[in-house]
Amino acid sequence: MTPGADGGAPTDTREEIVRAVMRALAKHGYAALTTKKVAAEASVSEAGLYYHYDSKDDLVVAFLEWALERDSARLSAAVGEDPVTRLYAVCDALLGDPEDDVDRGINVAMMELLAHAPHEERFADLLESYEWRVVDTVAAILEDGIEAGVFRSDLDAGATAAYVLVTTDGTAGAVMALGMTEVGRQVRERLFAYLDEVVLAPGVSPPPAYR
Amino acid sequence: MTPGADGGAPTDTREEIVRAVMRALAKHGYAALTTKKVAAEASVSEAGLYYHYDSKDDLVVAFLEWALERDSARLSAAVGEDPVTRLYAVCDALLGDPEDDVDRGINVAMMELLAHAPHEERFADLLESYEWRVVDTVAAILEDGIEAGVFRSDLDAGATAAYVLVTTDGTAGAVMALGMTEVGRQVRERLFAYLDEVVLAPGVSPPPAYR
Repeated sequence: MTPGADGGAPTDTREEIVRAVMRALAKHGYAALTTKKVAAEASVSEAGLYYHYDSKDDLVVAFLEWALERDSARLSAAVGEDPVTRLYAVCDALLGDPEDDVDRGINVAMMELLAHAPHEERFADLLESYEWRVVDTVAAILEDGIEAGVFRSDLDAGATAAYVLVTTDGTAGAVMALGMTEVGRQVRERLFAYLDEVVLAPGVSPPPAYR
Repeated sequence: MTPGADGGAPTDTREEIVRAVMRALAKHGYAALTTKKVAAEASVSEAGLYYHYDSKDDLVVAFLEWALERDSARLSAAVGEDPVTRLYAVCDALLGDPEDDVDRGINVAMMELLAHAPHEERFADLLESYEWRVVDTVAAILEDGIEAGVFRSDLDAGATAAYVLVTTDGTAGAVMALGMTEVGRQVRERLFAYLDEVVLAPGVSPPPAYR
């Protein structure tokens, strides 16, 4: 076991704990969250949690750091491939899978923590740096593709990246929390159609999996 | 004073109370909300609140009903005008104004209640009926415009309406809760560009205010 990046629990205990935080957030919500409720979701005692984390908010910050690392890994989808392949793979990863309990749990919990961000500076800082990382990653892919001539030369990379961020963020409510699966299917189809119609240069095809 | 539509407080007392719920939600979050904290934001005593509402959740439901009525009114923006004018006006209303405290308060509070919807059936029912009302309203405008020849004939009205819903919902996090105003400006610009590029039939111009 190696110490966690946050200086808290070792990484495998940390993985166990942050998943327990996610389940407890899904059941009780942030404000009703207690270390007791997190312990009830983990194979770690409440005393064991306090050994690694000083407070409920430290647990939530550890969860957010883990969720954001996991999403950073998803932002690396198809890294090293051409810009067209990368763009579709990253949008796919950002949309997440509403059938996957962990994807749904993370998205709904992050939405709740976003609602608390105006009053919790640590949440706001972590969430804002994540949102910028999404924008910067998508903008860099778009710039690579403009340079390579596969995306439209007049594309505004920053604005288009912000638009992709907000559209994919928006699925957390209707699709993930309310379970409106038909809306989820339609948004996925429309987002890829948007890339085909507005982002790809004339004559450039989407990757085979998205045709 | 006339009785409220929900059978609770008369409408002007109700307006006062639901605004207090909104401010209390913004300060404390849903799970930490108490009738005492709502009373602290209102010129009504805690006993006065109990006279009209039986529980904290009744207060939250009254807030949601008010917020959804307010948004329904916004969905009527430019009603009676041509489909092009209505579509741009409704999208504008759905994006809301991040500089307006009430718009921001409602959007962030609704995002928090969405996160609780999987565990609170009354919230889920109200929020889902609101989301469908947005989709149905936008889809009806799109169908009118396809019929009138001002929108592309091959447009999928339902999917495009779902896409508009999710994109505008998505501004609640980055733009409203985190205050990323540049992202808000870019999403607004990109959404209207999307309408110009993908929705309007060739040769049809956006309304003057959106050119």
